[in-house]
Amino acid sequence: MTLSESPQNTLFLKKLAAIVGVENVLASIEDRLAYAYDATPMRENVPIAAVRPTSVEHVQALMRLANAENFVVVPRGSGTGLSGGSIPVERSIVMLFPAWKRILEIDQENLTAWVEPGVITADLHAAVEAQGLFYPPDPGSMKVCTIGGNVAENSGGLRGLKYGVTKDYVMGLEVVLPTGELLRVGNKCVKDVAGFSFKELFIGSEGSLGIFTKILLQLIPKPAAAKTLLALYDDMQKAAGTVSAIIAEKIIPCTLEFLDATTIRCVEDFAHVGLPTDAEALLLIEVDGHPAAVADEFEKVQTICTKHGAREVKVAKDAAEADKLKTARRAAFSALARVRPTTILEDVTVPRSQIANMLQRIRDASKKHNVTFGNFGHFGDGNLHPTCLTDERDRDEIHRVEKAFEEIFLAAIDLGGTITGEHGVGLSKKRFLEKVAGPTGVEVMRKIKQVFDPNNVLNAGKIFDPKPRCEAPLPAAATGF
Amino acid sequence: MTLSESPQNTLFLKKLAAIVGVENVLASIEDRLAYAYDATPMRENVPIAAVRPTSVEHVQALMRLANAENFVVVPRGSGTGLSGGSIPVERSIVMLFPAWKRILEIDQENLTAWVEPGVITADLHAAVEAQGLFYPPDPGSMKVCTIGGNVAENSGGLRGLKYGVTKDYVMGLEVVLPTGELLRVGNKCVKDVAGFSFKELFIGSEGSLGIFTKILLQLIPKPAAAKTLLALYDDMQKAAGTVSAIIAEKIIPCTLEFLDATTIRCVEDFAHVGLPTDAEALLLIEVDGHPAAVADEFEKVQTICTKHGAREVKVAKDAAEADKLKTARRAAFSALARVRPTTILEDVTVPRSQIANMLQRIRDASKKHNVTFGNFGHFGDGNLHPTCLTDERDRDEIHRVEKAFEEIFLAAIDLGGTITGEHGVGLSKKRFLEKVAGPTGVEVMRKIKQVFDPNNVLNAGKIFDPKPRCEAPLPAAATGF
Repeated sequence: MTLSESPQNTLFLKKLAAIVGVENVLASIEDRLAYAYDATPMRENVPIAAVRPTSVEHVQALMRLANAENFVVVPRGSGTGLSGGSIPVERSIVMLFPAWKRILEIDQENLTAWVEPGVITADLHAAVEAQGLFYPPDPGSMKVCTIGGNVAENSGGLRGLKYGVTKDYVMGLEVVLPTGELLRVGNKCVKDVAGFSFKELFIGSEGSLGIFTKILLQLIPKPAAAKTLLALYDDMQKAAGTVSAIIAEKIIPCTLEFLDATTIRCVEDFAHVGLPTDAEALLLIEVDGHPAAVADEFEKVQTICTKHGAREVKVAKDAAEADKLKTARRAAFSALARVRPTTILEDVTVPRSQIANMLQRIRDASKKHNVTFGNFGHFGDGNLHPTCLTDERDRDEIHRVEKAFEEIFLAAIDLGGTITGEHGVGLSKKRFLEKVAGPTGVEVMRKIKQVFDPNNVLNAGKIFDPKPRCEAPLPAAATGF
Repeated sequence: MTLSESPQNTLFLKKLAAIVGVENVLASIEDRLAYAYDATPMRENVPIAAVRPTSVEHVQALMRLANAENFVVVPRGSGTGLSGGSIPVERSIVMLFPAWKRILEIDQENLTAWVEPGVITADLHAAVEAQGLFYPPDPGSMKVCTIGGNVAENSGGLRGLKYGVTKDYVMGLEVVLPTGELLRVGNKCVKDVAGFSFKELFIGSEGSLGIFTKILLQLIPKPAAAKTLLALYDDMQKAAGTVSAIIAEKIIPCTLEFLDATTIRCVEDFAHVGLPTDAEALLLIEVDGHPAAVADEFEKVQTICTKHGAREVKVAKDAAEADKLKTARRAAFSALARVRPTTILEDVTVPRSQIANMLQRIRDASKKHNVTFGNFGHFGDGNLHPTCLTDERDRDEIHRVEKAFEEIFLAAIDLGGTITGEHGVGLSKKRFLEKVAGPTGVEVMRKIKQVFDPNNVLNAGKIFDPKPRCEAPLPAAATGF
């Protein structure tokens, strides 16, 4: 701990140290700068300090102190979020969870796992798969991100179409409320209707309704087989037609991803996986499940790809080859990020039937505002990642980028979709929330925030701005007094 | 409309008629008695009237009137609930939905359906299955119950183990809030993280947080094949061992149901399906999915049943025979209900690994209090239906029944389970809610109710009692004034 200069600050840091121990308060300027930002471009804010609680009681005491002393606690997993969820706000401390990395239990009989919030997602995958079980959510950052962060953001991934998202696997939570109270919600029962189902409020609350100290996850049997292919197209419409035909055939692949022309070229340039750089669209398709079902469905998928105009279909012979094909998709963000200094990865989502229209609207906005987008994402579940390649130092370009994104968000809403499929609202999309959730919806959210966090001390100012205490302006006459 | 006598009542009924039309206000004593009860035994209460809104505006206007005139609206589907969710309370009107029976859209491309709340569950099954699609939730009352009621109660059914419950299929809601405001939440996107996920609050809110006027459901492809068997045992422990072994083999049947000895005998006596009346336990198992996977898994299940001591395994040769086998399970409640004048069907739920222990605790309570239980239910997901065969006219016996149920509920909580898996809390289990949800959990629920329904006009008094306005008793000294 390095104490800052003012006596007030010194006293404050001592109070934090009295709770978590002096070794767990990080207040040097280097530490504070390190936690000033996350993976969200163009946003940062320096916190007063970062703290590392090592017990539930620490978390509770810190929240009570926050209420007493009126500061904000910003919980942070690995900081891979893309909407600013873990970026500090005014008068805030960042809360870190390096001491919370234990998988506490894998229950073979009930198909559940109890984990601490700091467990890395890929570590959980490995641990349960070693026992023949499966935890489907696989966000792009799974090698570094934490389960606590995944629950806070309701993370998705490449397997969402068939297996759903994080919310579909959270059975229970031990959570410290913003007021410091400890709440346990959920259990190992598949069915439970005892009172309102408010567990879901915490999932995707972007760290603003509670701090998870223990998480109960549902597991499923590991699919016995999987087969993977890449299909390449000269025309995005043909790729879209393929996807519709697969669903019409009543096949639900676990993975159904796409890259557009820009992304294909960047990926090939970066990862040299042998993609033809003149292709206009690429689909990555994986079918999993019982071996006999996989064999049959995979053959049908291959036929559909060819019938709908794929110019080439690459089939993975084994798991190693499948991994190689997946590299093309998993490398998309890194490949695009090399092209220009600033990369803005978005995640508008539309009903599956509207994807081709949505891509057209992105192209229109790109052309109109003269900005470059690479597009990739989850074709199967309508979750697109229009990724803008830009330079934050160029104010004029950034202004045009903002205009383009605004049109893209509004287009998604117009097509029956949403402004964010898996990244969250955070700081980045607050001003669009009311357009998608409606004024009544946002009002409900504000009131729910008020129920859990009356003093607005937990990740305040994320998702929506706090309402000013005085809701109506004073009447003109009254100002005379 | 038959107006009751007092001028005050006449005026009130006229106000209702001004909203929904005189033909849609049911106020004769016969009508009022008809809506005084639902399927919950030993509870009834006569409403002021029943009303049949025919538009969203009617529902909104009725809720505004309820707030203005301080009466309670009790929404009612088909009244099949078992916890008193649709039983009138003091100063209440019952709201009915016979005009809301349209399936508005089945979207083949996005695999969704928009329905009105009054659609009968089995009618939706038939409509989507005709298009090769599937809506899994299948509560016992599916031939008469409504989707609106299913969403309000978060209904389960026989396919919950593999396919989950109603909550897992609700993608969006159009809902009139208790204050009369109209709210739309959710959309056809598989992924959406724009703000707090509060849609789930309405699902299972037992008609107390909002009135559904339109429901968007997720559909899945209809499983291409299914195979069904009945296995009979001389010992419940052997049936439990079979279930554990099936899960350990990484097979998740869509149906995994059981009957105990008492239920087997009653079912045979009632339905004559050829069950041996000396069997101690029966499992009904259905595996569904891709034909090749079904063939393989079904063979494994058969082997496991035999290996774990089934004295007989009856395999259904075709769908008609499968239906016959399922009759044994579907007839359980009706069969038990014939034995004594009053049948109390409960739905305690425990983690799957605790089912054998839970059944022992039910036997203990039954013996201790000298009351008769038949047990059946969803072995796969831990959801048991201990069903008490009694006579409500025998006050002493009913007192013993209540004691036994109290012990059963507490045992379920003790084993890591819950007081209700699919029936809800309603009026019947209010006093046990805090034991399972904890005081903080119930406090959260109360505050959420307050957010949506500040005047407590929508199905008030269900799930938990409203808190008295003056929370603490007056101090003794104050009573002197």
